[in-house]
Order: sequence, then C-alpha cells, then structure tokens
Amino acid sequence: MVAAKFGSAAVWRRSGVLLAGAIGALLVCAAAGAGSATTELAAGGAEILGFAASGAAAEIELERRFDSDLSAADLRSWMEHMSSEPNHVGSAHDKANAEFQLKKFREWGWDASIETFSVLYPTPREVSVELVAPTHFTARMTEPPIAGDTTSSKLKDQLPAYNVYGADGDVTAELVYVNRGMPEDYKELERQGVSVKGRIALTRYGGGWRGLKPKLAYEHGAVGCLIYSDPHDDGYGEGETYPKGGYRPRDAVQRGSVQDMVLYSGDPLTPGVGATVGAKRLALQDAKTILKIPVLPISYAAAEPLLAALGGRVAPAAWRGGLPLTYHVGPGPAKVHMKVLSEWNQKTLYDVIATLRGAQEPDRWIIRGNHHDAWVFGATDPLAGQVALMAEARAIGKLYKEGWRPRRTLVYASWDGEEPGLIGSTEWSEAHATELKAKAALYINSDTNGRGFLAVGGSHGLQHFASEAARDVKDPETGASVLARALTKGRVAAYESSGHRNSSADLELDALGSGSDFTPFLQHLGVNSLNVEFEGETDYGVYHSAYDSFDHFRRFVDPTFEYGVALAKVAGRLLLRASQAPLLPACESDFAASIAGYGDELHKLADGMRAKTLELSTLLDEDAYRLAADPTRPRAAPPREAEVPYLNFAELDNAIAKLERSARAFDKNYARINTLDDAGAGAARERTNAVLTELEQSLTDSQGLPGREWYQHMIYAPGLHTGYGVKTLPGIREAIEERRWDEANRYIGVVSRALNDYSARLDRAI
Amino acid sequence: MVAAKFGSAAVWRRSGVLLAGAIGALLVCAAAGAGSATTELAAGGAEILGFAASGAAAEIELERRFDSDLSAADLRSWMEHMSSEPNHVGSAHDKANAEFQLKKFREWGWDASIETFSVLYPTPREVSVELVAPTHFTARMTEPPIAGDTTSSKLKDQLPAYNVYGADGDVTAELVYVNRGMPEDYKELERQGVSVKGRIALTRYGGGWRGLKPKLAYEHGAVGCLIYSDPHDDGYGEGETYPKGGYRPRDAVQRGSVQDMVLYSGDPLTPGVGATVGAKRLALQDAKTILKIPVLPISYAAAEPLLAALGGRVAPAAWRGGLPLTYHVGPGPAKVHMKVLSEWNQKTLYDVIATLRGAQEPDRWIIRGNHHDAWVFGATDPLAGQVALMAEARAIGKLYKEGWRPRRTLVYASWDGEEPGLIGSTEWSEAHATELKAKAALYINSDTNGRGFLAVGGSHGLQHFASEAARDVKDPETGASVLARALTKGRVAAYESSGHRNSSADLELDALGSGSDFTPFLQHLGVNSLNVEFEGETDYGVYHSAYDSFDHFRRFVDPTFEYGVALAKVAGRLLLRASQAPLLPACESDFAASIAGYGDELHKLADGMRAKTLELSTLLDEDAYRLAADPTRPRAAPPREAEVPYLNFAELDNAIAKLERSARAFDKNYARINTLDDAGAGAARERTNAVLTELEQSLTDSQGLPGREWYQHMIYAPGLHTGYGVKTLPGIREAIEERRWDEANRYIGVVSRALNDYSARLDRAI
Repeated sequence: MVAAKFGSAAVWRRSGVLLAGAIGALLVCAAAGAGSATTELAAGGAEILGFAASGAAAEIELERRFDSDLSAADLRSWMEHMSSEPNHVGSAHDKANAEFQLKKFREWGWDASIETFSVLYPTPREVSVELVAPTHFTARMTEPPIAGDTTSSKLKDQLPAYNVYGADGDVTAELVYVNRGMPEDYKELERQGVSVKGRIALTRYGGGWRGLKPKLAYEHGAVGCLIYSDPHDDGYGEGETYPKGGYRPRDAVQRGSVQDMVLYSGDPLTPGVGATVGAKRLALQDAKTILKIPVLPISYAAAEPLLAALGGRVAPAAWRGGLPLTYHVGPGPAKVHMKVLSEWNQKTLYDVIATLRGAQEPDRWIIRGNHHDAWVFGATDPLAGQVALMAEARAIGKLYKEGWRPRRTLVYASWDGEEPGLIGSTEWSEAHATELKAKAALYINSDTNGRGFLAVGGSHGLQHFASEAARDVKDPETGASVLARALTKGRVAAYESSGHRNSSADLELDALGSGSDFTPFLQHLGVNSLNVEFEGETDYGVYHSAYDSFDHFRRFVDPTFEYGVALAKVAGRLLLRASQAPLLPACESDFAASIAGYGDELHKLADGMRAKTLELSTLLDEDAYRLAADPTRPRAAPPREAEVPYLNFAELDNAIAKLERSARAFDKNYARINTLDDAGAGAARERTNAVLTELEQSLTDSQGLPGREWYQHMIYAPGLHTGYGVKTLPGIREAIEERRWDEANRYIGVVSRALNDYSARLDRAI
Repeated sequence: MVAAKFGSAAVWRRSGVLLAGAIGALLVCAAAGAGSATTELAAGGAEILGFAASGAAAEIELERRFDSDLSAADLRSWMEHMSSEPNHVGSAHDKANAEFQLKKFREWGWDASIETFSVLYPTPREVSVELVAPTHFTARMTEPPIAGDTTSSKLKDQLPAYNVYGADGDVTAELVYVNRGMPEDYKELERQGVSVKGRIALTRYGGGWRGLKPKLAYEHGAVGCLIYSDPHDDGYGEGETYPKGGYRPRDAVQRGSVQDMVLYSGDPLTPGVGATVGAKRLALQDAKTILKIPVLPISYAAAEPLLAALGGRVAPAAWRGGLPLTYHVGPGPAKVHMKVLSEWNQKTLYDVIATLRGAQEPDRWIIRGNHHDAWVFGATDPLAGQVALMAEARAIGKLYKEGWRPRRTLVYASWDGEEPGLIGSTEWSEAHATELKAKAALYINSDTNGRGFLAVGGSHGLQHFASEAARDVKDPETGASVLARALTKGRVAAYESSGHRNSSADLELDALGSGSDFTPFLQHLGVNSLNVEFEGETDYGVYHSAYDSFDHFRRFVDPTFEYGVALAKVAGRLLLRASQAPLLPACESDFAASIAGYGDELHKLADGMRAKTLELSTLLDEDAYRLAADPTRPRAAPPREAEVPYLNFAELDNAIAKLERSARAFDKNYARINTLDDAGAGAARERTNAVLTELEQSLTDSQGLPGREWYQHMIYAPGLHTGYGVKTLPGIREAIEERRWDEANRYIGVVSRALNDYSARLDRAI
C-alpha cells in the first residue's frame, strides 16, 4: 500500500546528533565515496562491503551483465498487461496476474510456485453516504470514467469506494468535523466542549494512518466515520487534477484498509499463524483488528456539501483545508446517513514464490518481495515496484541459464493481499517462521516507484551497504549516481531551509514503520530488512483510486519507465551483493550511532515533558488559560498532568555505550578478515556470517510490545498512534509519551537486555 | 492605516536574549508586579515610575476621577455619527468630522483649532480591470450593498477601489502571478526563468507592505500591478464572511496607499517641510514617493478568473492561496487590460489640535494622536481609536473644569490624511519641527482598536512605564488587569508552541516600524513614542473596504465599546502620568538590554550569512542544484555570492557595553532622586527631566538612513523591503542584508556614536 504522501513520514528521523555518530562510524566502515556530487560511478576496482578486492571486481562484472538484460520496454508491457483490469484480492485478474508471473518466473529458469492462503476478506454489497439535514445530498461512491484514461471506463469488476475491515452498519447521526482524527485533534475538541459521542466523525486523510481514524472515533463514542481527501493535500492544491495533471480529481476516492494493523498484520482470524486451509481461526467477533463502527472514504466533491452544512465553532487554523468554504467543527446541523453492508467471506490469496538455490550457502536466504494486488488497477501502487522486481528476476534467470550460480539462496516473492493488511507476506512469514528465523539473512522490499530520488529505509547497520549500491547506479536523468542525487537533494534542502551543511557521505536510512510487506519480516520475525523506492518527481495524487492507471503512470509518474529500471538496478545489486559477498554486508558502528541518537532523543523527550508539565501546572495554578482565552469562545484548559519522574536510563545508557564499543571492535575485525585470502579466512568468515544471519533477532522480544505481542522488534515499530509512522525504541518511547512510567522503566530493561544480547553476539563473532 | 494582519509584524521582535536582559533590568527598575496572572489591580499605594509614594497616591485618585467620566455610550454615538458617511480625504464628511471634533474639544474646555494643509491627493476618475484573453471578464471596482449593513448602500460619495499615488496608465499585457510581490518572490521567479518585464504583475496582499508590491514590480520591468485579497488570508479561510461573520466577502476590496513611504511620509510634494499654502513644492515628476506604473486593488471574486486563466508552471507551495484552483505563475495566456485615470489636484487636510497648557512645565509637551480620515466609513480604522481619544479629552476637560491643572502641557491631535501617507501628522510635525524638538517629551498614538489583548509598541525605555499603566487598568471581560491578560496570553502561547516559559513581568514592547502617525514623531524628529491598541479577539477581515462600518464594528469588533473605554484608560494613564510625574518616566536598563539584544542579532546575522555563503559556493562548485532539481522543471541555481567579510563590530560592542553601564547608573540615580522630598530634589529632577525630554534625539542622525535621509532614527525604521515591518539598527542591518559591507561598517560607526551620545547624556543627568 505504501502511504503515499501522508502517514509515511518517518517521525523519528535521524537527527543531527545521529549524523555526528554516523560520521564517526565512517572512520571504521569505508565511505561510499560519493559524498561529492561530482564523484563518478565506481569503476571496476571499487570497494564493496563484504568483498575482497578481487571479488569486488568479479561482482561488478556480474552486475554489468545483470544490467544489460534490464529493459524499460519489458516493464512497460508487463505493467500495461497487469493493470488492464481491476486486480484487488478476490478479483479474477488478481489470480490471473499471479499465474502470469508464475509462468514468467518459470520461463526465466526459477523454481516457482503459487502458495495460497484462505483469508477473511469482506467485500461491500452496499455502501452509501447521504446528507439528510439541513439539506439533502447523496454522495457518489463510484468513480466516473475520465477521457483519455482507458481503464477508467472498466467499471464492471471494480469494487465501490470502501475501507476494508470496517464494521457493517446503518447509522444516521449528526456530523462532527474532527480534522485528521488523531489524538491531538480529540484533545482540542474536548477543550472546545465538542464530543463525537453518538455522532459521525468526518475526518480528512493524512496526519496519521487511515485505520487510526475510525478506531479513535469509535473510542471516543462515534457511531460512524467518514474519511475524505482534501484538495489541499493531493488535489488542486498540489497541482492540476487528472487528466490535465496528475492530482486527485474531485470524484476520486482513496480506498484503503482500516484493519487495526498496529496490533498485528495479516488475516484478522489467524494472528501469528499462517492462514492455511486447516489453520485454527478466531471467531469473527474475537478478531481484534476488525473495527467496530462503519467507515467509508469519500471524495472532496462529496465532502464539500457536508462541510458546508456544518455549524458550530470555526475549525482551528490548522484544521482548514482547500475547499472554498469556512471549515466548522459542528456538531450538526449537518446530519448524515451512512450504510455499509458487506459479504463477510473467505478469499484465496495467491503468493508467487520463486527460488534459486544457493550453491555454497543454500541455507542462507536473500529474499526480495513486492505485492501484486491493488485497490483497482494499481499502476503506481504496486505494479511500478512489481515490474522492476520481475525485470530483476528475468535478468538473474538469464545469468543462471548462462551458468552463474548464487552463493546463497535467492527467494523472489510476489505477494497477494498487501492492500487489505500485508496479508500475503504476513501469512507466508508466519507459515514459514521457523525456517525464516534460521535462514533469512535479508529481506528487500519495494512497492510504489516513480521518477525522482532514491529513498531507502531499513536496519541502520545496512546504511553503508545500501549507499554503495546507490553509488554504483546511474540516475537516468542526470547521469550522476543515484547516491549523489539523493545526497545532493538532502544537502540543498538543508541549505535552503536552514543554511546548515549536511555532510554525510552515506544515505541516511529512514527507520521503518509499516505500510508495506517488510513489516512481518522485520518487526514480527526480526529479519534484517530494507525498503527501496524512487520518489519525489511524480505528480501522483490518485493514490488508491481507480485513476492510478497505466495511462496516469505513463504521463505523470515514470513516462520512460527508466526509474523502474533504476529500481531494478539498485534492488538487484542489493540482492546480488548480499548473495555473493563472502561476508554478509554490515556496518555495526552505523547501527550503534543510530541507537545512541535514539537514546539521546528519549532523554530529551522525558526532560522536555518534565519541564512542560511543570510550566502547565504553574499556568493552571494562575488561571492563565481563562485569561488567555476569548470569553466568547470558551476553550477549557488542558488537564493537569502528573509530574514526570526521572527514569532509570542508566541501564540503557550503559547498554548503548557497550554497543558502541562492541560495534567498533566488530567492524575492525570485519575489515581485517575481509582482506584475508580465502583459505585463511573461511572459519572466521563463517563465524561472522552465522552471527549476522540471526543478529537482528537479538533485538526481538517474545513478549512483544505492550498490548501487541505480535510486534516483537524492540527498535522499530509502527506507532500505536501514528500507524505507518515509525516509533524507534517503541516500548520506551510510547510509554513515555503516554506517561506510563513503570512501563517505561520496564522497557528500558527489556531494550537494554536486547542491546546487550546484540553486543554479546558481536563480541562472539570476533 | 495600521496594517491589519499583514505587514504589521514586528519582524525583529525581541528574542530570548533580550528577555534575559530585560529581567536583569528589573533589578534596577521596580517590577510592575503583575507577572502573576492572579495579581490584583494596584491599590492606592502602588508604585508608579517617576512618582514618590505620596504623589502616586494622588495620581491614582486623579485617574479614578478620570475613569469615572469615560462612557461606552459616548464612544458608540461618536462612532456612529462619524462613520455615517464616507470620510476620506477631500470628502465633505471628512471636513465635517474635523469640525465636529473641534466643537467637542472646545465644549470640553480645550484650547482647540483646526490647522489646515494643502496636499497633493489624486482621486480616480476612471479605474478598470479586464481579462481580455483567453476569455473575457470585467472586474467590479465598487463594493455592492450588503443586507443589514446600513452604510454599504451609501455609494454616492464613495471612491471606487483604488491605490492612491500609483501612476495613471492604460496598459494591456500578459499577466504573471508573483505571490506577495516581495524580493524573495522575484528571486524565485528568476530561478524559474519567468520575467514580469512588459507584463502586469498580479500580487496578493500580505507578506510585506502594499506599496512595495507595485514598486518592486516596476523595478522588475512590469507595466502594471494588481493587488488582490486572497480568501485564505482574510476571507472565508479565516472565518465566515460578512455579513454572516466578520471576514472579507468576495467583492470586498482593500484600498490603500502605495506611496513610497519608506523614503518619506507625508505630502509627496513637500518632503521635510510643512505643506502650508506658501510652502515650496516639488514638481509632480520630481516627487520620488509617487509610483511609476498603474496599480489597482481587486477582490477575490475578481482575482479568481484571472488566476484560473494563468498557465505556465504551478506556483510554489507557499504561493498558493485559498481559491479552489491550481495556482499558476504564468506568464499568460491570461492577458489583462487595466486603466487608471486620476484627478491630480490639491486637497485640504484638517488637523484638529487641542491643548491644555502645563501649569509647572509648560514647555514640556505630552502629545496624544489618532487620525480621523478613513478609506470609506472607517469604523474600526481609525474611528475605534479616535473615539477613545475623544473620551480621554472629554474626561480630562472635566478635570480641568473642576480645577485640576496639568503639570506639563497636553496636546491632543486628530490627524487628517493618515490613510494616503501619514500626511496630517507628518505635515504638522514638519511645520512645528523646531518647537517639537525642544518641547515634545512623549507622543502616544493609537489607530484601530477592538476586543482582545493590549499591545504596545515603542521606545524600549518606556517598557516599564507602559507596563505599569497596563497593570492599573482592568480588562472588561475577565476582571484581571490588562497587563495580566497580555502577559498570560504570551505565556500560554509560548507554552503551547514550545513548552518554554516566558517569565517577563513587563510587557515586551514591539519596536515600531511604520503604518501609523507615530512615524514622523519617532523616526523623523526623534520624539519618544508609544503606540497602543487592543486586538486579538475581533473577526476583522474588512480592512480598508466599504464594509469597515459601524454595523460591522458593533457585531464583530467591540460590541460593547468597552475595549474603547479600556484604550482610553490606558492611553489616558500614559498621558496623565507622563504629564504629572515629577520625573519623566524612563527605565534605561530596559533600553540598553534591548539594544544589546539587537546587537547580538546583527552578529548572528552576519555569521549566519557567512556560513551560508560558503555552503552555497560549495553546492555551486559541485553542481548540486542541477542534481537536486527535476530536469523536467528547470530551476536555476541561486547566483553565487561574494564572501561575507568580518565586520568592525568592536565599536558597536563597546558602545553597547558603555550604554549598559550608563543606563544602570542612571536608573539607580533615578530611583534615588525619586525618593527625595520635593525641596531637596528640584535641581536633580530638572536636570534629569531636561535630559529625558530630548534624549531620544541623540539616536537620530541628520544624514538619515542610506537613500532616505528623512528617516533619521538610527534604532527604528520601517524596512526598505518590509514597509510597515520594523528593522532595528536599520543602517547596519539592511546594509548587511543587502551585502553592502562598506555601508555596514560605516553605519556601525554612526550607530555607535549615537549610542555613545545617548550614554553621555545619561551620564550628564547624574
């Protein structure tokens, strides 16, 4: 699914503090060498992490052959075919696409099969939204054909606009506008004395994950929830609308899942186990990730009369969007009737799995995945990533046919059911959990893709590895390396916003939250993961609508398909290098520096909350909120908060200090054994590779995070209140944010033990 | 005129650094004692700056009598009468209002007269704006009547929408959208390869002073300029529009002066001298403050079809407003025909001047002013302030009739011709310059007023004085002091935005830029000045339109007129205390702390520019802008800048250090002589008062600022490129900003000498 513009923000991006750490780390791991924008692509003699010099030369030659078999024309024809009919879960074309890919993988020489799962997937029988007072209006729940967009007229197999895994319901109630529908919005409403209890919450997309909007509305007593796309965010406020430009036209609707994915992803009925035919299933009413109230997405054409009919207080400045009206909060007099009636049955998912067995280390797997299901036609999301993956598989198959053999086992996966809740990848990961924990050394994900700049997220120890791959791929538009372009963009942005210099010579990897298929691998199993895409030069405002089509893509996303080829080159290098390198890629000093930065953030978070809590108490003691408010527009003071105690950070600080020492020693040893000749280095390399394969699992805890044991990674998780947005060191961070001090102290212990285990494994590798 | 929401921002507000200084200063001058929101109003025994304890008690009693004669009903009836017909310069009702006030002042016992000036004031004979391609549309240049707004139907004597002091012209040309039309906007256009040369610039209000928009458009080659009001800024984006709410309706137009007031204010033909009948006048073509191209203001109803007809690049995100369309830059295909034809003749201004001669120090004047001319009916701007001033005069007249005599001379002024360019106050100041320099100890200005919070701008040495007056006036809505409300609002805002504590116990005075009648007093003559208003709880979006009416005011600005009464209480206290205090009010440590803060800002400005210039050079060397840009949307790199040298700050730093020492010594001495009994203190007080009366003039320099010798104050000036917005230490700051290093060093010398003169005068007072 990938969160398009909204919700994907890596909230806890690496700060300046971390940068300093990362620069320090470069003293240990070699710099990618592309810090200067003028640096040329690596020649045959470039350093590659995990390879000795001679091996690196052979690898570069292999990659040259790989590149020569990538063709933009292939990507274009596969996308046109696969996006020619609606291909959501349960559609005929979804299955046909899986079979099309199976046939291709087999043609290309892979050992491929389709693995099926049977999952709960409700589809709408009836959806409707009507304004019934003070005036009458009926919202359109289908998207009309658009001239020049070939597939938009194929209405027959499309589902109407809906949000999967909301509840069925038929409710009529007053409307309240709740902005993004996030926790801060409800705090503001409470201060204004407005409640959604017994009412329908009208929310707008963005500001946090879609599924949190109806969940929080329900928790505040709402009986229904509407989510609309404001034109300020991805419509005419961003650019000309489709078909004149690429942005959301007035009748386009953002579909999407509202499954409570921050608890667990996958089939709601089979948490933690693969949804095979014989699997034990929860009863529907026990599935915690299915919401309790009806929820529907609407267009801005449909939202405009609803917003215009609202009375009550004028909405706060930050709540106002791009419609030509004054945004009010309500409640009422607008009254809405909404209805959702679904077919609650099982559908079959078709995961396509293709492998090439490793010649030397067959029990170490390098996995590459992208999903093939979409909401309607899905040209950008997900086929832009999918066709790059296919191009990689074709080129690797050709190498294989020519006699080349991977050192480690390659697994290519085309997932089904990502859109409703990362289901295909989750069920497969759960079904194969034991084997994956033993064998999966790396998972490389992609999803959407388009013109622009390389963005990589993932485990911080892979930062240098990812940067080297970026160093060695040429940007289609400028001829510079994609690393140089990405770094330069960051430097220019830093200069233009603050004038400060950002001097990192490596990509800074975003920590991963959720929103695509890396989640079950990284956050449930503890498999080292990366997510790769190009972005930033597209006119893409049709996310999850019927207008995310081939015609849209070829005009506004990646007209030449060359960024698809570039994605294949980057992901292919990551895969081939991780497969072929005598030493699995790692730079642990980068990881340690990132963790040190996150630890620093937690100190500042607690200290800042402490000071702020004290000031709030003073303000409340002095009746300041009454004096600062307009008496004709009463707004209650925020509630008094208990003092913030000093937390037991020492254990975490010590664990981080230890991690920094161990990582530095590990990296030195890594560099040393990398230069040994093969004969002398075998045992040392095997010991290091054995540690690295399972290293990330030391960061998991079988108890998981509070209230969501499925999420076992102690460093990265989707935020309980951000959804796709990541929270790093989530057990501690979210406990502090929610003022649960005992829990914060407890998770300081859990995280510290995980880090100490990580450090001990690093020590053992030496 | 006052700049409503836009352009009035005090750009160089006092920073945290200054706060620290101000807190230090409180060790010297007594705290106002209202830092806590719960502090009660001062009882009879309160300390008042410049009074010994017994004198303070008598003053409090005098103020009690003053307050008892203020009546909201008076303010209401005067406003209703004075706003009943259009009252712009040259209108019959403008003259009638002056005569009405003259009669009142005389009734109230003042020695009053009308002083006239003859000034150039062009009025439109023909104004028109038409879209002539690709479609046709004619803009409405008058504002239609609105139901429930009594005066809006009085169209007969209204002028059409126009901007006074633009050039006449009849041009047809392609349109370019230039956002706010400020220097940064033209830099962006240049990078996009778009020029306004030979074209008409469409600008939107806000972001800088109105008059800069056509001036900069002309300097970039435009042949005409339109200025429209975007609904995001003061229309439906802010709140319901008039008459449902108080914000700008679709056909409302913001009139206003575009005189090049950053060069000099007043009659364009008589810079530096009073525009008396016999004054020497410039020829029209030599008047530098009259613009060279036609300019007209339009409504958003008129702007919408123009913006919709523009093509070219999509405007940058920050340039987009609240209309339901995609904002484009152009140029064209929109082509516009605009015409301005004016009657270029002289009009008579009617300044009403009323005095009460001081009994003990008749040659020290305390002056109070507000203007009476408006753009149409002018209920909020300027009559809200004017009727408060009248209430003060009435109450003071009553005290006088009852036998009270002011210690120093009081001068009440009702200015004409403020709207076209602060003309009535400027001509009067210039005509009486010699006398004012000798006698004027303080000028207290007001203009608009409405429900909300007290805001005071002015000379920083008056901060404690202003705070004490605010301490002793009760807020009409909450019963707290207006000081407590203003401080509390600041503290809550600081808490909500940053969580930080703002612990100042005094008001922080905004440095004054321009936009109202204090400018000739403060910035031309060097008279210590204050500007006072209540604001922040109004729904005021009809600035300079025909809908700034009595009906609008009584519904959306100050329905009970009690904030008008509160303004009279604050301004009356300032006036009475400055008149009656044995020692003129001053806290020089506050002034010194502010200057130290500004000095610190200049260091940081130069250092920041130096670092940024170096980084830009590196980015340009590395071709970073090419790599960071989307090649399909070319945007040139910014031009390379010369290195920033180290400036000769030592002289300024030494002058500031000296000022801090002298100010502290002065304040200690001031506190000492304040407690002496009258017999012993006479000579010391007279010496101090003599210094204080002319002290501010030591901050002026007869050469003035570069290219604008009329602006002689070396600490405060309207910015050359901000207009109303202030630049502090402008000779140095603007030279640095514009990279004129020799000039920066020269003005470091000029400012340092002025500060040293100031310190020497403080030393002499001891």
